[in-house]
This record gives sequence, C-alpha cells and structure tokens, in this order.
Amino acid sequence: MTAPIKPINLFEYETLAAKHLSQMALDYYASGAWDEITLRDNRAAFERYKLCPRMLVDVSRRDLSTTILGQSLQMPILIAPMAFQCLAHPEGEIATAKAAAKLGTVMVLSTLATKSLEEVALASKQTEQEASSIENRFWFQLYVHRDRGLTKALVERADEAGYRALCLTVDAPVLGRRERDRRNQFALPAGMELANLVTLTDLEIPYNPGESGLFTYFLEQLNPALTWKDLDWLQSISHLPLVVKGILRGDDAVRAVEHGARAVIVSNHGGRQLDGARASIDALSEVVASVGDKAEILVDGGIRRGTDILKALALGAKAVLLGRPVLWGLAVGGEAGVGHVLELLQDELDIAMALSGCAKLQDVDPSLVVRL
Amino acid sequence: MTAPIKPINLFEYETLAAKHLSQMALDYYASGAWDEITLRDNRAAFERYKLCPRMLVDVSRRDLSTTILGQSLQMPILIAPMAFQCLAHPEGEIATAKAAAKLGTVMVLSTLATKSLEEVALASKQTEQEASSIENRFWFQLYVHRDRGLTKALVERADEAGYRALCLTVDAPVLGRRERDRRNQFALPAGMELANLVTLTDLEIPYNPGESGLFTYFLEQLNPALTWKDLDWLQSISHLPLVVKGILRGDDAVRAVEHGARAVIVSNHGGRQLDGARASIDALSEVVASVGDKAEILVDGGIRRGTDILKALALGAKAVLLGRPVLWGLAVGGEAGVGHVLELLQDELDIAMALSGCAKLQDVDPSLVVRL
Amino acid sequence: MTAPIKPINLFEYETLAAKHLSQMALDYYASGAWDEITLRDNRAAFERYKLCPRMLVDVSRRDLSTTILGQSLQMPILIAPMAFQCLAHPEGEIATAKAAAKLGTVMVLSTLATKSLEEVALASKQTEQEASSIENRFWFQLYVHRDRGLTKALVERADEAGYRALCLTVDAPVLGRRERDRRNQFALPAGMELANLVTLTDLEIPYNPGESGLFTYFLEQLNPALTWKDLDWLQSISHLPLVVKGILRGDDAVRAVEHGARAVIVSNHGGRQLDGARASIDALSEVVASVGDKAEILVDGGIRRGTDILKALALGAKAVLLGRPVLWGLAVGGEAGVGHVLELLQDELDIAMALSGCAKLQDVDPSLVVRL
Amino acid sequence: MTAPIKPINLFEYETLAAKHLSQMALDYYASGAWDEITLRDNRAAFERYKLCPRMLVDVSRRDLSTTILGQSLQMPILIAPMAFQCLAHPEGEIATAKAAAKLGTVMVLSTLATKSLEEVALASKQTEQEASSIENRFWFQLYVHRDRGLTKALVERADEAGYRALCLTVDAPVLGRRERDRRNQFALPAGMELANLVTLTDLEIPYNPGESGLFTYFLEQLNPALTWKDLDWLQSISHLPLVVKGILRGDDAVRAVEHGARAVIVSNHGGRQLDGARASIDALSEVVASVGDKAEILVDGGIRRGTDILKALALGAKAVLLGRPVLWGLAVGGEAGVGHVLELLQDELDIAMALSGCAKLQDVDPSLVVRL
Repeated sequence: MTAPIKPINLFEYETLAAKHLSQMALDYYASGAWDEITLRDNRAAFERYKLCPRMLVDVSRRDLSTTILGQSLQMPILIAPMAFQCLAHPEGEIATAKAAAKLGTVMVLSTLATKSLEEVALASKQTEQEASSIENRFWFQLYVHRDRGLTKALVERADEAGYRALCLTVDAPVLGRRERDRRNQFALPAGMELANLVTLTDLEIPYNPGESGLFTYFLEQLNPALTWKDLDWLQSISHLPLVVKGILRGDDAVRAVEHGARAVIVSNHGGRQLDGARASIDALSEVVASVGDKAEILVDGGIRRGTDILKALALGAKAVLLGRPVLWGLAVGGEAGVGHVLELLQDELDIAMALSGCAKLQDVDPSLVVRL
Repeated sequence: MTAPIKPINLFEYETLAAKHLSQMALDYYASGAWDEITLRDNRAAFERYKLCPRMLVDVSRRDLSTTILGQSLQMPILIAPMAFQCLAHPEGEIATAKAAAKLGTVMVLSTLATKSLEEVALASKQTEQEASSIENRFWFQLYVHRDRGLTKALVERADEAGYRALCLTVDAPVLGRRERDRRNQFALPAGMELANLVTLTDLEIPYNPGESGLFTYFLEQLNPALTWKDLDWLQSISHLPLVVKGILRGDDAVRAVEHGARAVIVSNHGGRQLDGARASIDALSEVVASVGDKAEILVDGGIRRGTDILKALALGAKAVLLGRPVLWGLAVGGEAGVGHVLELLQDELDIAMALSGCAKLQDVDPSLVVRL
Repeated sequence: MTAPIKPINLFEYETLAAKHLSQMALDYYASGAWDEITLRDNRAAFERYKLCPRMLVDVSRRDLSTTILGQSLQMPILIAPMAFQCLAHPEGEIATAKAAAKLGTVMVLSTLATKSLEEVALASKQTEQEASSIENRFWFQLYVHRDRGLTKALVERADEAGYRALCLTVDAPVLGRRERDRRNQFALPAGMELANLVTLTDLEIPYNPGESGLFTYFLEQLNPALTWKDLDWLQSISHLPLVVKGILRGDDAVRAVEHGARAVIVSNHGGRQLDGARASIDALSEVVASVGDKAEILVDGGIRRGTDILKALALGAKAVLLGRPVLWGLAVGGEAGVGHVLELLQDELDIAMALSGCAKLQDVDPSLVVRL
Repeated sequence: MTAPIKPINLFEYETLAAKHLSQMALDYYASGAWDEITLRDNRAAFERYKLCPRMLVDVSRRDLSTTILGQSLQMPILIAPMAFQCLAHPEGEIATAKAAAKLGTVMVLSTLATKSLEEVALASKQTEQEASSIENRFWFQLYVHRDRGLTKALVERADEAGYRALCLTVDAPVLGRRERDRRNQFALPAGMELANLVTLTDLEIPYNPGESGLFTYFLEQLNPALTWKDLDWLQSISHLPLVVKGILRGDDAVRAVEHGARAVIVSNHGGRQLDGARASIDALSEVVASVGDKAEILVDGGIRRGTDILKALALGAKAVLLGRPVLWGLAVGGEAGVGHVLELLQDELDIAMALSGCAKLQDVDPSLVVRL
C-alpha cells in the first residue's frame, strides 16, 4: 500500500499531470479558444447521448481490433496530432510514438513536433520490430505553410520516412484565440525547436510581447488561402492517402471525399479554434449520414472514457483520436504513461462493449445510443 | 422529544446508515460504475416526469395489493437482489427476508448472499406462518457461473427450498467498474462468506491487490458467454417461472419473452454496470410498448419516494424493486429497519395514490404522467 | 433616509416576514410536500415561458379591472384561501379581508380560518362601505367534512353572511405530507382555534406526537370519498356559484363544468399536496383548451411578479390567486402589509401590460408568450 | 511586463470599469428590469446556438465592411444609444462619438445624452475629416415626449446637425422597473444635465424619494400613447430615414416596415424594460423571416464576443449594436477605451469569420448556426 498507486482512470492522470508541467505548458495543453465553451461542450455533449445496451450476447471473446486506411489497429483509438510534446516530457514525440507502436495503434505526428519526423519514424519502426508487428502505424499531420516549397519538402520527407497517411488540418487558417496563451505570451522554452522545420528554414515560434507566439507564427507562416483545390495539389505531390481533419458539416465532408480524402476526422480541434462551434460528437451523425461508406469517419474531442468511444462508434465513427490524455500520460510517465493511458481506455472500451453485448466493433450499431 | 426520532423518509435512513457502515461497505453499497452518471440519472430522470393527478375519485378505501407471477403481494414493492447483506447487519439476508415476509412482499435473494438460501427460506416461511399468510414470497436471483454443475445445483436447491421464481441477472457478463471498490480493493471481511456457494465449492471473493475482489470473482467465475438459448437450458432444469433482470431495450424484452420469461425487470443494475446507460425509468415505456401483456414488467433504479413508484406504475410497470434503501434500513435497524423503510414507502405510495385519484393499482393509468 | 424603507417587491416581503414568524408558522407557510419539487417547479416553470411584447399601442390609460363570476374586481388578483392566518398576525383573516376590500378584489376565506366567517364578512362589508364599493367581494372555501351536517351548516352560514361563491377544494382527500410540519409536530398555539367550527362542534387541530396535527385532522375529519356527484349535492343545498379549486387536467376541468362549476382554479395547492405534480402554469393551457368559454379559468401557484400574471393571462387565465405573499404582507404589516403586497403586484402588472402593448386585460392574447 | 496590461476581451473591461464608476452609475449601467431574467437570458441564449464552420475557403483577405441605410461602415457593429455617458467619463458622448468615427462605424446618440447633439455631431465630423472618411456616421435616438413641440424641435436640430437617421425607441412607453436604481433613488450628479433638452425647456431628471428619478421622468415626460400612426407624423416632419428600435415580434416588424421604417432593431432594451421578454437573439429569426428584404434588420442585447456577432449575422441580422461594453471602455479609458473595445470585437469577428470560412459578411449564411 505504500507503493505508488497507479491512476485508474484518465481524470487521475489529468490531476497528476498538473504537477509535472510548467504553468505555460499546462495552460497551453488545457486551454480552449475564447470562453472555452466548445471545450466544455465537447465533454458535456457525451452526456446527452445515453446507451441502450443489448443483453445475452456471447461476449466471452472480445476483439477491439480494426483497420483504418487498410492498416490493422489493435484498438479504435488513434493518437491525435499535438504540437510541442517535449513540453510534457524530454523524450516528447518519441515516447508517444513508442507507446503507440507497442500497443498497435497509430500516432499522428504534428508538423509542429519537437522531435523530427525521421527520429519519430525510426523509434516507431524499432518498437514495431520488437513486437514483430511491422505496420508503420504513423501518420504525418500537415499544416500547409505559405511557403509551398517547404510544405512539399515536408510531405516528401514524410513519405520517405515511411509515414502511411497525410493528415491535413483544415480548421486553422488562423490560430484560435486561446487567451491563457496570450496572457502567458506563449513561447517555446530555450532548447526546444520546431524539429521538422529547422533543417529546412530558420523558422521558430516567435516571441511577441502581449501575444501568443504560436498565434503569431500561424499568422505569418500558415496559408489562410487554402481551398479544396489544394487537395488536388497535395495528391499530385504525394501518393499517400489523404485524411482531412477538422470537419464539422456534412457538406464539407462530402467535399473532402470528392477531392480525394480517404478519411475524414470530425473535430473542432479540441475546442481550441472556433469557440462556440458544435461539439464534435454532435456533428458526427450529420457527417456519417452525408458520407456513407465513401470514406472512413473518425472523431476526436472530449474522449475520456471507454463509453465515450462506444457512443462515437455507435454514431458511426470507425475510430476516435485521443488528444490531451496522451499528454497527461506523457507528462506523468513518458512512454510508460502514454501506454498506460491507452491501456486504461482500451480496457474501459472492452468492458463497455462486453456490457453492451458487443463482442467486436462491427457489433456496435446505432441502436445502442439514444439522444436524451 | 428526548426519545430517538424515527426517520420519516428514506433519505434520512441514508444519512443514518452512513454512521453504521464501514467505509468499504458504504462505498460498495453507494457506488456506481465509472463516473456514476447513470447512478445520478436514475434519480434525476424521475423529475423529468410530472404527475397529472385526477380529482374527486372516491379514495376512502385504498388497496395497494397486487399479484406478481400469480403470487399475492401487499404492495407493488419487491426487494431487489443485493449481495453481501451481512456487511450491513449481522443477521444480513435473514433480517431482510423476515421484514419482507412480515409486510407481505417478495424478497429476491442474491446468489452472492452471506446467508444460505436454505436459512433465508426457513426464516421467511416461519415469519409467514406467524402472519398466517403462507405464500413463500421469496425468489432466487441467479448468476450463471462458468461451472454449469454449480449453477444447476443452486437452481435445484432454490427449488427444493421453496423459492417461487428464478430471477436471472443478464446485465453482468463482467462486473461494472466501480472505482471506489477498486480503490478500496474490495474484499469480504473475515468471517463472511458466499453462503450459497461454500457448501458446493471453495469459492470465495478473492483478495486482488489494486483491484476489486468482486470484479475479479466475476471475471474468473461467471459465464460471459451466456445467450438467450441458455434460458431454454434453465427452463429444462427447473420448472420455476423465469424472471429476466437487467433489460433496457424493447427488443431485448421481446427476446426474453420469446425465450420463456414470465417477467422482465427493466434495470441498469442501479447504475453499477454500464455507466452512461439510460435511466431505467426512461427505458420503461419502450419495454412496456414492446411486450404488451405477454409478460409482467417490473422496474428498479432510483426509487426513493412513493411518487417514484406511482410514476413507474403509470408508465406501465406492474411493480418496482427497491435496492439500496433496504440496505440503509438494514444497517440502521436490522429487520425492524427494513420493515420501516418498506412501511414508509408503502405509506407514501398510499398517500400519492389518494392524491391522484387512485383507490387501487389498476386505477393508475398512463395519463397520470407527462414528460416535461 | 433613516425612515424604514418599504419593501419594493414580494421577495423582500418574504425575507422580512421570516423575522416576524415563529419557526413553526414559517415552516407551515413555506413548506411543500415531500421533496418540495413541485413547490420549486411552480416558480421555475414561469421562466420556461417568454414574453413577446407588442409595441406602439396606446397604453396611456390602463385598466386592470375585470369581472369574475359577475363581480367587478379592480385587478385580476384574488387572495387564495389559506388556513390559520392568526399565525401571521393577531388580526388574521380580518386584516386580510379589509385589505382585499379596500383594493377591490376578492378574498377567499378558508374553512380553517382562525376568525369566523361572520366576523370576516362583517369586516369586509364595512370596508367596502367606506369605499362606497358594495360588492361583497368574499368567497368561502369549503373543505367537505365526513360530517355532512357540519358541512351543510358551514355552507348555509356562508350564504347567510353574504359570501358570493363557494370555492370547493378538491385536491385534498388526504393532506399532503409536509415533512417540516411533521418534524415540528405542527399544532395551533394556545388561544388559536378553528373559528368556523368551534361553534358547531368541538373540533380542533389535535396534537399528535411525531405527526403534523393538521395531517391527523384531515385523516379524521375530511371526507376522502368525495366525488363529482357531491357537486350536485352541494348545489342542492346552496344557490351560490361553485368554484372548483385544485384541477391539473383538462378532463377533470370538463367534469367540473359538467357538474355545474362556474369557475375552475388550476392549482397544485402551492406544491403542498402531491409532490411531483406538474406546475400549475404548465397545466393551464390544457385546461383552457378543454373548457373553452364554458367556465372561467383561474390559476394559482408561484405568482410573485406582475409578469407571472401577464403570462398566466396570456395562457388563458381570467385571473390569478395569490397565496404565500399575502401571508408575508400580513406578518410584516397586518392589513397595511397585505394591501401593499397587492399594490406592488398591481403596479408590476400595470407596468408589464404597458410594456407589452396591453391597455386592458382583453388585450392580453396567447401570442404574448412562447415556450422556450 | 511591469507596464499596465491592456484588457484582452470585453469581460476584462467589465471588471476594470467597476473600479472607475460610482455605485449609482455602475448599478445604472449594469441593471436589468425586476429579476434581471432577460438580462441574463440575453447572454445565455447565445450558447443555445452552435456554429457549424465551413472549411477550406480562401480567407486570406477578409472584409468586415458593410453598408447600413446606404452608409458605409467598417464593421457591422454600431454603438447603441445609451443615456448619461458623462457618468462614465467627463467627455461622455463626445469621446464615444470620436471613437466611432475613428473606427468608421455609427454611433447612435441618445435623446438623454449629457452632451448636446450639436457638440457630438461636431466632434464626429472633425474626427471623420482627420480620417478623410466623411460619412456623418451618427444617428439620433428619439424618445417622443408628451410635448410634441419639443420632440419636433429635437428632430429638426438632429437633421440640421447632420444626423443621418432617426432611431425611434418604441419599447419604452414607461420605463422598466430597475430595482437597483429604485433603491439608489437614481438621479444625475450635480453638474450633469440633459444636454439636448436644457436649451429647449427646463427639463431635468427629478429627485424622487424612494424612486428612480429616471422612472419618474419617463412617467411625466414621455408619451405612452404613441402608436404606429405617429411614425407617419415623424416622417412628415423629417426626411431622415427611420429606424425602429425595440421589436421582438415578426408582426410588429412588418408593421414598422409598413409605416416606413427603413431598418428594425430587434431588441429588449438590454433586459431593462420588460423582464421575462425573450432574448433578442431568440426573436431575430422570426423578425428576419417576416420582413424579408423589405428592411434592414439589426439586433442588440448581450453581444460580448465576435462569435455572438457571427451568430447574429448567420441568423439574418445585417449588423449588431453594442451597448454596455462601450460604457466599460469609456469608463476605463475614454475615447481610447471605447476604440479598443470596438477593435477587440472587430478582431474577434475577423478571426471568427476566418475560422468559419467567411471572407466577407455576405458569406455568412444561415447554415452556420444550429440551435442545440
């Protein structure tokens, strides 16, 4: 009993993580845009959906595995792209990648990583080899910069390093106003850098008095003129399957598919971009109904419990992406922490499925949820 | 005024009971699964239904009696199956059984009782004889173990001891994650045992560091492969009428009836299994509409006031089952406490019916409730 | 500024009144049945209705007068029947009657008054004479006792004393369980009596240990066998117009009219009878739609602001009855307090009508409210 | 970091302003009528509408300019008419006018200004000349007094001074009951006067013990008999385009248009008139649907964030009016404070539009909002 007790759910990781993070990092991870209404609503929305479990189904053998973009995953839980993971732990994105690889799921590496995509790919592959499960379960998240050459170089490097999909973030023509970051004048600590970009240019997160440095970076570097046609350009420079992240409308999802997207991630960027946007789980049904089986639909935003995932699957998502809780695990215990966070959620989903009469993911159907 | 004042409602029993229970027992009784959303919603849901009382009906003589499975009951309030009642009081299930027998209602004895089913049956029959009301108002709740022989032996013993129904719990292929129990590493105190099972095997609730012993017990002993077909097997080994407990969907209720269930209990296991499941009162109408008069529908979950029962009856339930409040009464005053809890609720229902223009249970109709 | 500031709204009267009342009286006035859900919902329900005011109507001359049962009233605000007003002020019902008479509205005297109906009628008439407005604006509220002779005697005395209507309370076959009264073992203080009954019988509110004396009184004395047919009996012994108080369903309102009621009061008895009953304002529309113009519809329950009255009128009520706030005024300032409470509410209604484009009560139409 | 930090949102201005204002002024600005339900609901209502942003639209060049009544505005944010601005800052309405002129938007000057309409017009024109943007972006808000001559004189002076529209407030036949003002016995401090009226008459805000002086002023001076026909009279004495402010119903909006209104402002007067009135954003859709393109629809009430404006535009408003936040800016920093408040909101709207796929106001369509 005197040995440290491991957290038993993600909320305990959240509490613990706060003790491992600087105020600036904690605020950066925790905050949403403006009044953080969408941030809160992402959680609250899940309570609006109630489960109607099915009984007396043989659930003695459960299987949580799935395939996304043709890749096999051990669970329908991917790791969402998140910037600056070295703020949470010295090994940053490498630790996260190893945990994902060990547990057989996909990590989506951010353009704004603090470890280079080559390092991360290498760590992931080595871990997979140890587990004899060679799948290259890592995708590259792309922010399209004003500098097309830089963007193209990133895409080519990702392809070369073995990334299996390009995950284009489309909800950030400018950065959302995160007021905590603005008050903190968010900037990267000394020694931390944009590891994917330093070798290409001298880009860095600027220090801008009275402003979030990241906000300024987006304003100066990212391309707010991006349109659906640019998806064609992307596909002309890379054969990697395209995933479009940040969709909250059925018609946009249809457009994504028409322009070649193989998967769509229903997301409001964790409440960090447009405050007041609908909760992602509230947008999911519309997207699923619009797209049908023409693309795979994923969703993120507010996932904290296995039952949240079960609701998302019942509403038509193929899988979910996990964001902040991964950072909490990373802050608390590095690779092991991330792994434990994933295991906790996997275990919760496993039990939730058993209690709902679902032995495998295909058994999860829309009748399992009602809106209150 | 210096004499101790008796509680005047069930909430006062809840407060008092907390002083009579160990933290482990209190937590075990009080807790729900994961975030305890369903636990709370079971209560909150009742406030979503409003009563539309009927006036100027002759309610001078009220009759709360009913029949369930052909047995006469003095009130439409049964005692739900609950494990380990010796945690609340040394006489445990025997005290509960006597109180039920004295007040003319059914007690459902748990497979996981801390008094043997034979002892409980005997106590119940003796009490009934004293009251000259010989009905054997006791049912046996069944958890189907992986060991079919053990399960069969339990059923045969229950039949032999005079139990009048088998109440099959179908919502527990695994145990719900009750985090308080996990933190407490729930286990039975020394001297307390699985009274129905010790004579058959050496089964006990294991001590499992960092885990609830009961969770482990379920994982190891109970059969997660149970399906509707097993209802046929049960009926082949016992002529006792079958009650299926733990249904939250209309289609499952229909399946239960098709496989021989004579009664269905709409229940989410007091919020202790699948957190996020709909409140049982919210599922009731769908079940009633699906089953019609092909089986008797009961409901449990969150019953604390006579008006809760009136709402359940108006929505189509034949009776309700009372859970935690029975344990509060047991903890506070043993048999007398359980009896008083039942009397309080009976009295409340009696007054609520008078105020609604219902002289007998058959007068309670759907027009008495509206959803807000 | 050192002079005492008069309250400017009814809530300030509520706060002040608490200082003038014994705990037993305060609890008796304030409490609702059981969990006081309906008590709170009576207030909360008003916020579910929003006003849609009409602009640019000539509201320079406003007229709040109306007629109820053919009697002219200066405002659509009657004083609800309330027992034991001497608990609030030594002059009790006499003070209330004078205030009502002075302001030109109807007081409904309770059977359980602490001043006799003859005294109250006299005080009312004298006040009306001083104001040269002879209308006998007082009604008698009737509880039908088991003793029919006593009931008949009451009705005959009321008729003789000049009461202009019989207001039959139909929602109290038994008394609602008001737990504060039960804990206080509610009884009348020495020197206070059932002034309408002492001359007929030796009836009094009994002291009953562990119980509310009023609850016991109802159990022993009132007739729980009353049905719609008894309205015929009442009309056979009195020519007074009949008002039925305590209706929450359209079909009951229709029955009341079919049995001769000239007016129906939509009411849940201030949340004091069946807890969980719908808010009276929520039941109003159904009653209005069912009855049409065959009877006058009044409503009580939770009226605290002029805008509450405006909403009730818009939903189809001809007038409202005011309960607890009258007692607050009475406790704070006797007749003057009651008068001021009425004036405050009259003034608020006057302003609310002006701001809604209503110069007279007939201008208030259903389009003024929407349900949120 | 030791330099004073500028507020980064309007709520910070609210907090700061409290330190610059007397209690009487603070209460006067902050308060709503009666229970302040509508005041709160104006804010809460915005959360009932959720945004559905559109992605991958070229938003590299954003344009927030619009035209209202044919005048060009740099942003769809006008300054609502508000009385007594010298309570917030010695330069009062002049400071506000300069800020509006500098930022290229319209200020609506109140009849009850503490600076004369001629002074304000002059200040506005001078500021516009410095910015080489000569538009006379100032309107005159009119309260029609009982004294028609005075009213006519005001209108003629406004016309002569260059005001470009008459904004007729129609929701104040009497003043709403603002209880804080009543308790404060609201009156203007010595040295402050009704600058538009002193030259015409000896009108002033009276001191009335136990009452708000402004309430008394309205009762004595304003015309509660105003009807739609008076719009014809107004148009007969002035060629200025007519704006009707204070509409909450579709039929009233239609009447306004039929009587010549060129624009309609959906408003509940900031919750200061009829408490319980619907939130202005909740009334907007009905007005838009009724009027179509026959008039320009504006809305005020509870605007605090750029996303509030985006929602209003999506629901069909051409622009919004900003009230209390302007006073907060004025109290904190005079002209500069007002300007910064406008800039903050303009910046927020700009970002919200970028994040919603709207490069210009015409891109904002109804599909951007859903009601939760």
